[in-house]
Amino acid sequence: MTKVAVILSGCGVFDGSEIYESTLTLLALDQAGAQYQCMAPDSEQMHVINHLTGQEMLEKRNVLIEAARLARGAIISLGDAVPSDYDAVIVPGGFGAAKNLSDFAVKGADMSVSQSVKSFIQTMHEAGKPIGLICIAPAMAPKLFGKDTVCTIGNDQATAAAIEAMGGIHQVCPIDECVVDRQRKVVTTPAYMLEGRISEVASGINKLVTEVLALS
Amino acid sequence: MTKVAVILSGCGVFDGSEIYESTLTLLALDQAGAQYQCMAPDSEQMHVINHLTGQEMLEKRNVLIEAARLARGAIISLGDAVPSDYDAVIVPGGFGAAKNLSDFAVKGADMSVSQSVKSFIQTMHEAGKPIGLICIAPAMAPKLFGKDTVCTIGNDQATAAAIEAMGGIHQVCPIDECVVDRQRKVVTTPAYMLEGRISEVASGINKLVTEVLALS
Repeated sequence: MTKVAVILSGCGVFDGSEIYESTLTLLALDQAGAQYQCMAPDSEQMHVINHLTGQEMLEKRNVLIEAARLARGAIISLGDAVPSDYDAVIVPGGFGAAKNLSDFAVKGADMSVSQSVKSFIQTMHEAGKPIGLICIAPAMAPKLFGKDTVCTIGNDQATAAAIEAMGGIHQVCPIDECVVDRQRKVVTTPAYMLEGRISEVASGINKLVTEVLALS
Repeated sequence: MTKVAVILSGCGVFDGSEIYESTLTLLALDQAGAQYQCMAPDSEQMHVINHLTGQEMLEKRNVLIEAARLARGAIISLGDAVPSDYDAVIVPGGFGAAKNLSDFAVKGADMSVSQSVKSFIQTMHEAGKPIGLICIAPAMAPKLFGKDTVCTIGNDQATAAAIEAMGGIHQVCPIDECVVDRQRKVVTTPAYMLEGRISEVASGINKLVTEVLALS
């Protein structure tokens, strides 16, 4: 049975993993008969956002502990995860991907991917395993997979320009579709980078999961 | 277009709304062409649980602010919600339903439902509108809808006995089915009160949503 690593970055669209994208990824994997294991870095969140007001809260939260909410407790530290145990990896979006897994939200095209994330994903990639990146997570693609990696974040011009500045090739894509770089086995879908309904996001994620499993 | 109130109780199975149940409810509503509005009490959580360890954390969180994570910020205070704006109401599970919407987790059959929750749901019920309760939320059914209300929480004997002690009629039900009290228009499904896969929980919630919309 195919086993997929799902890398989370907290719990909540503005400072962690986007909750619907994460849940819909796990649903699609389970409906396809694949196993999954959630994992997250054991590190402090960049910050905590009050999701009612959009304002920063004066407290600290840990990425792994908050991501455990999204996994009903069934989660491991990314630092303890062994790439050879998995056939593929998927990273849902939410600002956590740009704040806690990388510093794209702060540094744009000068970003770097955090070490544990980079190490795990690049080891998977070098072993020929497929990688799915959702929403803003594809902003990490050029740094992870090198020049000319093809990906999408929907149609946001500033983010697309940053991806191109890092050497990636951005393709415009609607919310219910995905883009596949078959050479690199990298699959991306815009999800909530575009305005849309949860059922449209589900369609895009279902297609991403189908492609990732087909490439594994 | 049918508009459904979804009452949340935080964000995370052990101290708030169960995340998958909440997301799958919104997905099923959207796929059925219904509108939804998330709402939650503006009150302090009973406590905060570290979902990695299961231990209580020494901090305070607000139910509405944390539930806003589950709603991508698109949430209102239950105290501001007007029952006549809605055609039906659904309450996902998670311990929040037994800790923040009621005190069932502490008091069992001696429980009471918190005032804003009771007022909103009973007004909807008295107007002949259907109510869907998921997972542990059906433990509130006898207190909300009176003696002989038929409901399910799956097959947990202690919880079923408490429901019966409060005057309800408990029916055993599998994870991918729901129970309908047609006289009272109350629909219930066990979801994560039973061990199961996310796709099985989705099946039960899809059936609950279909029944709730059919009764509205």
